[in-house]
Amino acid sequence: MGSKVTIEEANAFLSEAFNGAQNRSTVISMEDGHAVVRLKTGEEHLRPGNYISGPTQMSMADSVAYFVIFTKLGIVPMAVTSNLNINFLRPCIGEAVIADGRLMKLGRTLAVIEVDIRAEGSEKTSSHAIVTYSIPAK
Amino acid sequence: MGSKVTIEEANAFLSEAFNGAQNRSTVISMEDGHAVVRLKTGEEHLRPGNYISGPTQMSMADSVAYFVIFTKLGIVPMAVTSNLNINFLRPCIGEAVIADGRLMKLGRTLAVIEVDIRAEGSEKTSSHAIVTYSIPAK
Amino acid sequence: MGSKVTIEEANAFLSEAFNGAQNRSTVISMEDGHAVVRLKTGEEHLRPGNYISGPTQMSMADSVAYFVIFTKLGIVPMAVTSNLNINFLRPCIGEAVIADGRLMKLGRTLAVIEVDIRAEGSEKTSSHAIVTYSIPAK
Amino acid sequence: MGSKVTIEEANAFLSEAFNGAQNRSTVISMEDGHAVVRLKTGEEHLRPGNYISGPTQMSMADSVAYFVIFTKLGIVPMAVTSNLNINFLRPCIGEAVIADGRLMKLGRTLAVIEVDIRAEGSEKTSSHAIVTYSIPAK
Repeated sequence: MGSKVTIEEANAFLSEAFNGAQNRSTVISMEDGHAVVRLKTGEEHLRPGNYISGPTQMSMADSVAYFVIFTKLGIVPMAVTSNLNINFLRPCIGEAVIADGRLMKLGRTLAVIEVDIRAEGSEKTSSHAIVTYSIPAK
Repeated sequence: MGSKVTIEEANAFLSEAFNGAQNRSTVISMEDGHAVVRLKTGEEHLRPGNYISGPTQMSMADSVAYFVIFTKLGIVPMAVTSNLNINFLRPCIGEAVIADGRLMKLGRTLAVIEVDIRAEGSEKTSSHAIVTYSIPAK
Repeated sequence: MGSKVTIEEANAFLSEAFNGAQNRSTVISMEDGHAVVRLKTGEEHLRPGNYISGPTQMSMADSVAYFVIFTKLGIVPMAVTSNLNINFLRPCIGEAVIADGRLMKLGRTLAVIEVDIRAEGSEKTSSHAIVTYSIPAK
Repeated sequence: MGSKVTIEEANAFLSEAFNGAQNRSTVISMEDGHAVVRLKTGEEHLRPGNYISGPTQMSMADSVAYFVIFTKLGIVPMAVTSNLNINFLRPCIGEAVIADGRLMKLGRTLAVIEVDIRAEGSEKTSSHAIVTYSIPAK
Protein backbone atom coordinates (compact mmCIF):
# COMPACT_ATOMS: atom_id res chain seq x y z
CA MET A 1 0.00 0.00 0.00
CA GLY A 2 1.29 3.44 -0.77
CA SER A 3 0.84 6.85 0.80
CA LYS A 4 -2.37 8.77 0.13
CA VAL A 5 -0.29 11.92 -0.34
CA THR A 6 2.83 12.16 -2.48
CA ILE A 7 6.10 13.81 -1.48
CA GLU A 8 5.34 16.65 -3.89
CA GLU A 9 1.87 17.22 -2.46
CA ALA A 10 3.24 17.15 1.07
CA ASN A 11 5.88 19.75 0.21
CA ALA A 12 3.33 21.95 -1.52
CA PHE A 13 1.21 21.82 1.62
CA LEU A 14 4.23 22.57 3.78
CA SER A 15 5.30 25.68 1.91
CA GLU A 16 1.79 27.04 1.81
CA ALA A 17 0.89 26.34 5.43
CA PHE A 18 4.15 27.40 6.98
CA ASN A 19 5.23 30.38 4.89
CA GLY A 20 7.75 28.73 2.66
CA ALA A 21 10.01 31.76 2.56
CA GLN A 22 11.73 31.06 5.83
CA ASN A 23 11.09 27.39 6.11
CA ARG A 24 13.99 25.09 5.44
CA SER A 25 12.17 21.80 5.90
CA THR A 26 11.35 19.36 3.14
CA VAL A 27 9.45 16.12 3.18
CA ILE A 28 11.74 13.47 1.71
CA SER A 29 9.69 10.31 2.12
CA MET A 30 5.98 9.49 2.22
CA GLU A 31 5.07 5.83 2.54
CA ASP A 32 2.16 4.02 4.11
CA GLY A 33 2.34 4.92 7.82
CA HIS A 34 5.83 6.35 7.49
CA ALA A 35 7.19 9.82 6.65
CA VAL A 36 10.57 11.54 6.80
CA VAL A 37 11.29 15.26 7.05
CA ARG A 38 14.70 16.85 6.52
CA LEU A 39 15.71 20.24 7.85
CA LYS A 40 18.69 22.15 6.51
CA THR A 41 19.76 23.95 9.66
CA GLY A 42 20.32 27.69 9.80
CA GLU A 43 21.59 29.99 12.49
CA GLU A 44 18.14 30.26 14.02
CA HIS A 45 18.18 26.54 14.87
CA LEU A 46 21.52 26.52 16.65
CA ARG A 47 22.71 26.97 20.19
CA PRO A 48 26.26 27.80 21.21
CA GLY A 49 28.48 24.87 20.24
CA ASN A 50 26.41 24.36 17.06
CA TYR A 51 23.96 22.14 18.85
CA ILE A 52 20.63 21.94 17.10
CA SER A 53 18.16 23.34 19.59
CA GLY A 54 15.54 21.35 21.44
CA PRO A 55 12.66 23.46 20.06
CA THR A 56 13.89 22.78 16.53
CA GLN A 57 13.76 19.06 17.21
CA MET A 58 10.34 19.30 18.87
CA SER A 59 8.99 21.24 15.94
CA MET A 60 10.27 18.59 13.52
CA ALA A 61 8.75 15.80 15.59
CA ASP A 62 5.41 17.57 15.48
CA SER A 63 5.61 18.11 11.71
CA VAL A 64 6.68 14.65 10.69
CA ALA A 65 3.91 13.11 12.80
CA TYR A 66 1.41 15.26 10.91
CA PHE A 67 2.72 13.95 7.61
CA VAL A 68 2.57 10.35 8.83
CA ILE A 69 -1.15 10.89 9.35
CA PHE A 70 -1.44 12.31 5.83
CA THR A 71 0.00 9.07 4.44
CA LYS A 72 -3.03 7.26 5.83
CA LEU A 73 -5.88 9.77 5.68
CA GLY A 74 -4.89 12.24 2.98
CA ILE A 75 -4.43 15.90 3.82
CA VAL A 76 -6.31 16.55 7.08
CA PRO A 77 -5.31 20.07 8.08
CA MET A 78 -7.60 20.02 11.11
CA ALA A 79 -5.73 17.25 12.89
CA VAL A 80 -4.21 18.83 16.00
CA THR A 81 -1.49 17.72 18.36
CA SER A 82 -2.90 16.66 21.70
CA ASN A 83 0.28 15.37 23.36
CA LEU A 84 3.97 15.39 22.56
CA ASN A 85 6.50 13.65 24.73
CA ILE A 86 10.15 13.95 23.78
CA ASN A 87 13.32 12.54 25.30
CA PHE A 88 16.61 14.18 24.39
CA LEU A 89 19.17 11.42 24.29
CA ARG A 90 22.32 12.86 22.75
CA PRO A 91 23.56 16.17 21.33
CA CYS A 92 22.41 16.77 17.75
CA ILE A 93 25.13 18.38 15.65
CA GLY A 94 25.14 18.63 11.88
CA GLU A 95 24.16 20.64 8.84
CA ALA A 96 20.89 18.83 8.42
CA VAL A 97 18.49 16.99 10.69
CA ILE A 98 16.32 14.01 9.82
CA ALA A 99 13.02 13.27 11.56
CA ASP A 100 11.65 9.83 10.87
CA GLY A 101 8.03 9.16 11.88
CA ARG A 102 6.26 5.83 12.07
CA LEU A 103 2.61 5.21 12.87
CA MET A 104 1.99 3.26 16.07
CA LYS A 105 -1.78 3.53 16.14
CA LEU A 106 -4.51 5.05 14.06
CA GLY A 107 -7.78 5.06 15.91
CA ARG A 108 -11.05 6.75 15.16
CA THR A 109 -10.16 9.87 17.13
CA LEU A 110 -6.45 9.53 17.94
CA ALA A 111 -3.26 8.79 16.07
CA VAL A 112 -0.02 7.93 17.88
CA ILE A 113 3.28 8.34 16.05
CA GLU A 114 6.81 7.46 17.12
CA VAL A 115 9.56 9.79 15.90
CA ASP A 116 13.33 9.35 15.79
CA ILE A 117 15.45 12.43 15.20
CA ARG A 118 19.10 12.42 14.30
CA ALA A 119 21.73 14.48 12.59
CA GLU A 120 21.94 13.53 8.92
CA GLY A 121 24.62 10.91 8.46
CA SER A 122 24.57 9.86 12.09
CA GLU A 123 23.27 6.47 13.13
CA LYS A 124 22.50 7.54 16.66
CA THR A 125 19.14 8.93 17.68
CA SER A 126 19.42 12.44 19.12
CA SER A 127 15.88 12.57 20.38
CA HIS A 128 12.86 10.32 20.43
CA ALA A 129 9.28 11.52 20.57
CA ILE A 130 5.82 10.06 20.87
CA VAL A 131 3.28 12.38 19.31
CA THR A 132 -0.49 12.05 19.64
CA TYR A 133 -2.85 13.85 17.29
CA SER A 134 -6.57 14.26 17.60
CA ILE A 135 -8.27 13.38 14.37
CA PRO A 136 -11.29 15.49 13.49
CA ALA A 137 -14.61 13.66 13.26
CA LYS A 138 -15.76 13.20 9.68
CA MET B 1 13.75 34.06 49.41
CA GLY B 2 14.29 35.78 46.12
CA SER B 3 15.56 34.71 42.73
CA LYS B 4 19.30 34.31 42.21
CA VAL B 5 18.93 36.04 38.84
CA THR B 6 17.01 39.27 38.26
CA ILE B 7 14.55 39.91 35.45
CA GLU B 8 17.10 42.21 33.82
CA GLU B 9 19.86 39.61 33.98
CA ALA B 10 17.54 36.96 32.58
CA ASN B 11 16.58 39.17 29.65
CA ALA B 12 20.19 40.06 28.98
CA PHE B 13 20.99 36.34 28.86
CA LEU B 14 18.02 35.72 26.60
CA SER B 15 18.95 38.32 23.99
CA GLU B 16 22.52 37.18 23.90
CA ALA B 17 21.89 33.47 23.77
CA PHE B 18 19.02 33.53 21.32
CA ASN B 19 19.94 36.33 18.95
CA GLY B 20 17.79 39.10 20.32
CA ALA B 21 17.14 40.62 16.92
CA GLN B 22 14.40 38.22 15.99
CA ASN B 23 13.32 37.10 19.40
CA ARG B 24 10.11 38.52 20.76
CA SER B 25 10.20 36.85 24.18
CA THR B 26 10.80 38.65 27.43
CA VAL B 27 11.12 37.38 30.95
CA ILE B 28 8.55 39.23 33.04
CA SER B 29 8.92 37.55 36.42
CA MET B 30 11.74 35.85 38.31
CA GLU B 31 10.97 34.67 41.82
CA ASP B 32 12.25 31.82 43.91
CA GLY B 33 11.30 28.67 41.97
CA HIS B 34 8.97 30.58 39.66
CA ALA B 35 9.44 32.40 36.35
CA VAL B 36 7.18 33.88 33.69
CA VAL B 37 7.98 34.49 30.03
CA ARG B 38 5.86 36.58 27.67
CA LEU B 39 5.91 36.28 23.90
CA LYS B 40 4.53 38.96 21.64
CA THR B 41 3.34 36.84 18.75
CA GLY B 42 4.32 37.47 15.16
CA GLU B 43 3.30 35.91 11.90
CA GLU B 44 5.91 33.18 12.30
CA HIS B 45 4.12 31.87 15.39
CA LEU B 46 0.68 31.60 13.87
CA ARG B 47 -1.27 28.95 12.05
CA PRO B 48 -4.31 29.58 9.88
CA GLY B 49 -7.08 30.88 12.12
CA ASN B 50 -4.52 32.86 14.14
CA TYR B 51 -3.87 29.92 16.41
CA ILE B 52 -0.55 30.13 18.15
CA SER B 53 1.37 27.11 16.93
CA GLY B 54 2.24 24.09 19.02
CA PRO B 55 5.98 24.50 18.43
CA THR B 56 5.77 28.10 19.66
CA GLN B 57 4.18 26.85 22.87
CA MET B 58 6.71 24.03 23.26
CA SER B 59 9.55 26.44 22.78
CA MET B 60 8.15 28.74 25.47
CA ALA B 61 7.70 25.82 27.87
CA ASP B 62 11.31 24.86 27.35
CA SER B 63 12.54 28.43 27.90
CA VAL B 64 10.55 29.26 30.97
CA ALA B 65 11.66 26.01 32.62
CA TYR B 66 15.27 27.05 32.02
CA PHE B 67 14.64 30.36 33.74
CA VAL B 68 12.96 28.65 36.68
CA ILE B 69 16.21 26.78 37.23
CA PHE B 70 18.12 30.06 37.05
CA THR B 71 16.03 31.41 39.93
CA LYS B 72 17.50 28.67 42.12
CA LEU B 73 20.97 28.03 40.78
CA GLY B 74 21.96 31.24 39.02
CA ILE B 75 22.77 31.21 35.32
CA VAL B 76 23.63 27.61 34.39
CA PRO B 77 23.85 27.64 30.63
CA MET B 78 24.85 23.99 30.49
CA ALA B 79 21.58 22.70 31.91
CA VAL B 80 19.92 20.72 29.10
CA THR B 81 16.40 19.51 28.56
CA SER B 82 16.14 15.77 29.00
CA ASN B 83 12.36 15.35 28.69
CA LEU B 84 9.45 17.56 27.72
CA ASN B 85 5.88 16.35 27.89
CA ILE B 86 3.16 18.71 26.74
CA ASN B 87 -0.60 18.40 26.57
CA PHE B 88 -2.50 20.77 24.32
CA LEU B 89 -5.77 21.48 26.04
CA ARG B 90 -7.42 24.37 24.18
CA PRO B 91 -6.71 26.63 21.22
CA CYS B 92 -4.36 29.50 22.08
CA ILE B 93 -5.38 32.72 20.36
CA GLY B 94 -4.11 36.18 21.24
CA GLU B 95 -1.50 38.83 20.60
CA ALA B 96 0.70 37.63 23.39
CA VAL B 97 1.33 34.33 25.15
CA ILE B 98 2.27 33.82 28.77
CA ALA B 99 4.28 30.81 29.98
CA ASP B 100 4.30 30.37 33.72
CA GLY B 101 6.81 27.91 35.17
CA ARG B 102 6.96 26.53 38.67
CA LEU B 103 9.59 24.25 40.15
CA MET B 104 8.35 20.82 41.20
CA LYS B 105 11.66 19.28 42.12
CA LEU B 106 15.27 20.30 42.20
CA GLY B 107 17.49 17.30 42.69
CA ARG B 108 21.21 16.92 42.42
CA THR B 109 21.09 15.97 38.75
CA LEU B 110 17.51 16.68 37.64
CA ALA B 111 15.06 19.54 37.85
CA VAL B 112 11.37 19.08 37.09
CA ILE B 113 9.26 22.10 36.20
CA GLU B 114 5.53 22.43 35.58
CA VAL B 115 4.47 24.98 32.96
CA ASP B 116 1.10 26.52 32.20
CA ILE B 117 0.71 28.36 28.92
CA ARG B 118 -2.17 30.64 28.07
CA ALA B 119 -3.05 33.55 25.85
CA GLU B 120 -2.46 36.80 27.71
CA GLY B 121 -5.66 37.91 29.36
CA SER B 122 -7.20 34.43 29.27
CA GLU B 123 -7.77 32.47 32.43
CA LYS B 124 -7.78 29.13 30.69
CA THR B 125 -4.66 27.07 30.21
CA SER B 126 -3.94 26.39 26.54
CA SER B 127 -1.24 23.87 27.17
CA HIS B 128 0.43 22.28 30.14
CA ALA B 129 3.95 20.90 30.15
CA ILE B 130 6.25 19.02 32.46
CA VAL B 131 9.86 19.76 31.61
CA THR B 132 12.87 17.90 32.99
CA TYR B 133 16.35 19.36 32.79
CA SER B 134 19.64 17.63 33.50
CA ILE B 135 21.75 19.76 35.77
CA PRO B 136 25.48 19.65 35.08
CA ALA B 137 27.67 18.28 37.86
CA LYS B 138 29.59 20.98 39.66
CA MET C 1 -21.97 22.28 41.13
CA GLY C 2 -21.53 18.92 42.77
CA SER C 3 -20.28 15.56 41.60
CA LYS C 4 -22.54 13.37 39.47
CA VAL C 5 -21.46 10.38 41.56
CA THR C 6 -21.33 10.31 45.35
CA ILE C 7 -18.47 8.98 47.46
CA GLU C 8 -20.65 5.99 48.39
CA GLU C 9 -21.48 5.19 44.76
CA ALA C 10 -17.83 5.51 43.79
CA ASN C 11 -16.76 3.09 46.53
CA ALA C 12 -19.49 0.63 45.60
CA PHE C 13 -18.24 0.73 42.01
CA LEU C 14 -14.66 0.29 43.20
CA SER C 15 -15.30 -2.78 45.30
CA GLU C 16 -17.34 -4.42 42.59
CA ALA C 17 -15.02 -3.67 39.69
CA PHE C 18 -11.78 -4.42 41.45
CA ASN C 19 -12.63 -7.34 43.69
CA GLY C 20 -13.09 -5.58 46.98
CA ALA C 21 -11.61 -8.42 48.99
CA GLN C 22 -8.02 -7.51 48.37
CA ASN C 23 -8.39 -3.87 47.55
CA ARG C 24 -7.38 -1.39 50.18
CA SER C 25 -8.33 1.78 48.30
CA THR C 26 -11.22 4.03 49.17
CA VAL C 27 -12.57 7.11 47.48
CA ILE C 28 -12.60 9.87 50.10
CA SER C 29 -13.73 12.88 48.08
CA MET C 30 -15.90 13.40 44.99
CA GLU C 31 -16.47 16.99 43.91
CA ASP C 32 -17.07 18.61 40.58
CA GLY C 33 -13.90 17.87 38.56
CA HIS C 34 -12.01 16.71 41.62
CA ALA C 35 -11.59 13.35 43.36
CA VAL C 36 -9.36 11.91 46.06
CA VAL C 37 -8.43 8.27 46.63
CA ARG C 38 -6.74 6.93 49.76
CA LEU C 39 -4.80 3.70 49.92
CA LYS C 40 -3.97 1.98 53.19
CA THR C 41 -0.66 0.39 52.27
CA GLY C 42 0.09 -3.27 52.79
CA GLU C 43 3.18 -5.35 52.32
CA GLU C 44 2.39 -5.85 48.65
CA HIS C 45 2.83 -2.10 48.02
CA LEU C 46 6.21 -1.75 49.65
CA ARG C 47 9.80 -1.96 48.51
CA PRO C 48 12.77 -2.46 50.81
CA GLY C 49 13.07 0.59 53.06
CA ASN C 50 9.26 0.83 53.25
CA TYR C 51 9.08 2.91 50.11
CA ILE C 52 5.69 2.77 48.47
CA SER C 53 6.35 1.28 45.06
CA GLY C 54 6.15 3.13 41.78
CA PRO C 55 3.51 0.74 40.36
CA THR C 56 1.34 1.37 43.43
CA GLN C 57 1.51 5.09 42.75
CA MET C 58 0.84 4.64 39.03
CA SER C 59 -2.15 2.49 39.77
CA MET C 60 -3.56 5.13 42.12
CA ALA C 61 -3.00 7.88 39.54
CA ASP C 62 -4.91 5.84 37.01
CA SER C 63 -7.79 5.17 39.42
CA VAL C 64 -8.26 8.67 40.73
CA ALA C 65 -8.32 10.05 37.20
CA TYR C 66 -11.13 7.64 36.39
CA PHE C 67 -13.13 8.92 39.37
CA VAL C 68 -12.52 12.53 38.37
CA ILE C 69 -14.25 11.72 35.09
CA PHE C 70 -17.15 10.14 37.00
CA THR C 71 -17.67 13.43 38.86
CA LYS C 72 -18.49 15.04 35.51
CA LEU C 73 -20.07 12.30 33.41
CA GLY C 74 -21.47 9.82 35.90
CA ILE C 75 -20.23 6.24 35.91
CA VAL C 76 -18.65 5.56 32.51
CA PRO C 77 -16.99 2.19 32.89
CA MET C 78 -15.90 2.18 29.24
CA ALA C 79 -13.58 5.15 29.57
CA VAL C 80 -10.05 3.83 29.01
CA THR C 81 -6.64 5.25 29.75
CA SER C 82 -4.86 6.33 26.59
CA ASN C 83 -1.78 7.93 28.12
CA LEU C 84 -0.24 8.17 31.56
CA ASN C 85 2.87 10.22 32.24
CA ILE C 86 4.27 10.16 35.75
CA ASN C 87 7.25 11.88 37.35
CA PHE C 88 8.58 10.48 40.59
CA LEU C 89 9.79 13.43 42.61
CA ARG C 90 10.51 12.18 46.12
CA PRO C 91 10.36 8.93 48.09
CA CYS C 92 6.85 8.10 49.31
CA ILE C 93 6.89 6.61 52.81
CA GLY C 94 3.88 6.22 55.06
CA GLU C 95 1.01 4.02 56.15
CA ALA C 96 -1.41 5.54 53.68
CA VAL C 97 -1.12 7.27 50.34
CA ILE C 98 -3.33 10.03 49.00
CA ALA C 99 -3.95 10.57 45.27
CA ASP C 100 -5.58 13.87 44.44
CA GLY C 101 -6.95 14.29 40.90
CA ARG C 102 -8.09 17.46 39.22
CA LEU C 103 -9.66 17.81 35.79
CA MET C 104 -7.61 19.86 33.32
CA LYS C 105 -9.73 19.27 30.25
CA LEU C 106 -12.89 17.45 29.35
CA GLY C 107 -13.32 17.27 25.61
CA ARG C 108 -15.72 15.29 23.49
CA THR C 109 -13.36 12.33 23.17
CA LEU C 110 -10.55 12.98 25.67
CA ALA C 111 -10.25 13.91 29.31
CA VAL C 112 -6.95 15.10 30.82
CA ILE C 113 -6.44 14.88 34.57
CA GLU C 114 -3.58 16.09 36.74
CA VAL C 115 -2.76 13.95 39.77
CA ASP C 116 -0.67 14.68 42.85
CA ILE C 117 0.36 11.75 45.03
CA ARG C 118 1.79 12.05 48.51
CA ALA C 119 2.10 10.10 51.73
CA GLU C 120 -0.79 10.92 54.03
CA GLY C 121 0.20 13.72 56.36
CA SER C 122 3.03 14.91 54.12
CA GLU C 123 2.83 18.22 52.32
CA LYS C 124 5.29 17.24 49.64
CA THR C 125 4.25 15.64 46.40
CA SER C 126 5.84 12.22 45.91
CA SER C 127 4.80 11.85 42.32
CA HIS C 128 2.88 13.87 39.77
CA ALA C 129 0.98 12.38 36.85
CA ILE C 130 -0.93 13.57 33.83
CA VAL C 131 -3.49 10.99 32.80
CA THR C 132 -5.47 11.03 29.56
CA TYR C 133 -8.61 8.96 29.14
CA SER C 134 -10.52 8.25 25.95
CA ILE C 135 -14.19 8.87 26.48
CA PRO C 136 -16.51 6.49 24.65
CA ALA C 137 -18.80 8.05 22.06
CA LYS C 138 -22.38 8.25 23.25
CA MET D 1 28.65 -8.54 24.30
CA GLY D 2 26.45 -10.34 26.75
CA SER D 3 24.39 -9.31 29.72
CA LYS D 4 26.12 -8.62 33.02
CA VAL D 5 23.33 -10.52 34.78
CA THR D 6 22.01 -13.92 33.73
CA ILE D 7 18.35 -14.88 33.43
CA GLU D 8 18.73 -17.02 36.54
CA GLU D 9 20.27 -14.20 38.56
CA ALA D 10 17.56 -11.81 37.41
CA ASN D 11 14.82 -14.21 38.46
CA ALA D 12 16.47 -14.83 41.81
CA PHE D 13 16.55 -11.06 42.37
CA LEU D 14 12.92 -10.78 41.28
CA SER D 15 11.59 -13.39 43.67
CA GLU D 16 13.53 -11.98 46.57
CA ALA D 17 12.74 -8.32 46.00
CA PHE D 18 9.09 -8.73 45.12
CA ASN D 19 7.92 -11.53 47.38
CA GLY D 20 7.99 -14.44 45.00
CA ALA D 21 4.94 -16.08 46.53
CA GLN D 22 2.42 -13.95 44.75
CA ASN D 23 4.49 -12.81 41.83
CA ARG D 24 3.79 -14.42 38.50
CA SER D 25 6.47 -12.64 36.48
CA THR D 26 9.58 -14.24 35.11
CA VAL D 27 12.51 -12.81 33.23
CA ILE D 28 12.82 -14.78 29.99
CA SER D 29 15.62 -12.94 28.22
CA MET D 30 18.67 -10.94 29.31
CA GLU D 31 20.93 -9.67 26.56
CA ASP D 32 23.15 -6.65 26.23
CA GLY D 33 20.77 -3.67 26.49
CA HIS D 34 17.70 -5.85 26.06
CA ALA D 35 15.47 -7.75 28.48
CA VAL D 36 12.11 -9.52 28.29
CA VAL D 37 9.68 -10.22 31.13
CA ARG D 38 6.70 -12.57 30.90
CA LEU D 39 3.68 -12.42 33.17
CA LYS D 40 1.24 -15.30 33.50
CA THR D 41 -1.95 -13.40 34.18
CA GLY D 42 -4.22 -14.10 37.11
CA GLU D 43 -7.56 -12.74 38.16
CA GLU D 44 -5.93 -9.80 39.91
CA HIS D 45 -4.59 -8.52 36.58
CA LEU D 46 -7.86 -8.59 34.72
CA ARG D 47 -10.68 -6.16 34.10
CA PRO D 48 -14.17 -7.12 32.96
CA GLY D 49 -13.90 -8.57 29.45
CA ASN D 50 -10.61 -10.24 30.41
CA TYR D 51 -8.63 -7.18 29.47
CA ILE D 52 -5.25 -7.05 31.14
CA SER D 53 -5.35 -3.94 33.27
CA GLY D 54 -3.39 -0.77 32.62
CA PRO D 55 -1.64 -0.90 35.99
CA THR D 56 -0.48 -4.45 35.22
CA GLN D 57 1.08 -3.21 32.00
CA MET D 58 2.64 -0.17 33.69
CA SER D 59 4.13 -2.37 36.37
CA MET D 60 5.65 -4.65 33.74
CA ALA D 61 7.08 -1.69 31.83
CA ASP D 62 8.72 -0.46 35.00
CA SER D 63 10.16 -3.90 35.82
CA VAL D 64 11.54 -4.75 32.43
CA ALA D 65 13.26 -1.36 32.21
CA TYR D 66 14.98 -2.13 35.50
CA PHE D 67 16.27 -5.42 34.13
CA VAL D 68 17.50 -3.73 30.95
CA ILE D 69 19.70 -1.58 33.17
CA PHE D 70 20.96 -4.70 34.95
CA THR D 71 22.14 -6.10 31.62
CA LYS D 72 24.53 -3.16 31.38
CA LEU D 73 25.47 -2.32 34.95
CA GLY D 74 24.90 -5.48 36.93
CA ILE D 75 22.39 -5.54 39.76
CA VAL D 76 21.86 -1.93 40.86
CA PRO D 77 18.94 -2.10 43.26
CA MET D 78 19.13 1.62 44.00
CA ALA D 79 18.24 2.70 40.48
CA VAL D 80 14.86 4.42 40.73
CA THR D 81 12.26 5.33 38.16
CA SER D 82 12.15 9.06 37.55
CA ASN D 83 9.64 9.14 34.68
CA LEU D 84 7.34 6.67 33.00
CA ASN D 85 5.27 7.60 29.98
CA ILE D 86 2.93 4.98 28.55
CA ASN D 87 0.55 4.98 25.61
CA PHE D 88 -2.18 2.37 25.53
CA LEU D 89 -2.67 1.48 21.90
CA ARG D 90 -4.90 -1.61 21.79
CA PRO D 91 -6.68 -3.94 24.22
CA CYS D 92 -4.39 -6.56 25.71
CA ILE D 93 -6.11 -9.93 26.03
CA GLY D 94 -4.37 -13.23 26.69
CA GLU D 95 -3.15 -15.68 29.28
CA ALA D 96 0.31 -14.19 29.35
CA VAL D 97 1.82 -10.80 28.65
CA ILE D 98 5.26 -10.05 27.26
CA ALA D 99 7.17 -6.85 28.03
CA ASP D 100 10.16 -6.25 25.81
CA GLY D 101 12.59 -3.54 26.87
CA ARG D 102 15.39 -2.01 24.86
CA LEU D 103 17.97 0.53 26.01
CA MET D 104 17.78 3.89 24.25
CA LYS D 105 20.35 5.72 26.32
CA LEU D 106 22.62 5.00 29.21
CA GLY D 107 24.09 8.18 30.59
CA ARG D 108 26.03 8.86 33.73
CA THR D 109 22.93 9.64 35.77
CA LEU D 110 19.99 8.61 33.57
CA ALA D 111 18.93 5.56 31.59
CA VAL D 112 16.11 5.69 29.04
CA ILE D 113 14.41 2.47 28.00
CA GLU D 114 11.74 1.82 25.38
CA VAL D 115 9.22 -0.91 26.18
CA ASP D 116 6.74 -2.74 23.99
CA ILE D 117 4.02 -4.74 25.69
CA ARG D 118 1.81 -7.28 23.97
CA ALA D 119 -0.24 -10.33 24.70
CA GLU D 120 1.84 -13.45 24.20
CA GLY D 121 1.38 -14.74 20.68
CA SER D 122 0.12 -11.42 19.37
CA GLU D 123 2.18 -9.36 16.95
CA LYS D 124 0.49 -6.12 17.84
CA THR D 125 1.79 -3.84 20.55
CA SER D 126 -0.79 -3.26 23.28
CA SER D 127 1.09 -0.50 24.98
CA HIS D 128 4.34 1.34 24.50
CA ALA D 129 6.30 3.00 27.27
CA ILE D 130 9.37 5.15 27.67
CA VAL D 131 10.87 4.66 31.10
CA THR D 132 13.61 6.82 32.63
CA TYR D 133 15.62 5.65 35.61
CA SER D 134 17.97 7.65 37.77
CA ILE D 135 21.22 5.80 38.21
CA PRO D 136 22.84 6.18 41.62
CA ALA D 137 26.24 7.85 41.70
CA LYS D 138 29.03 5.39 42.29
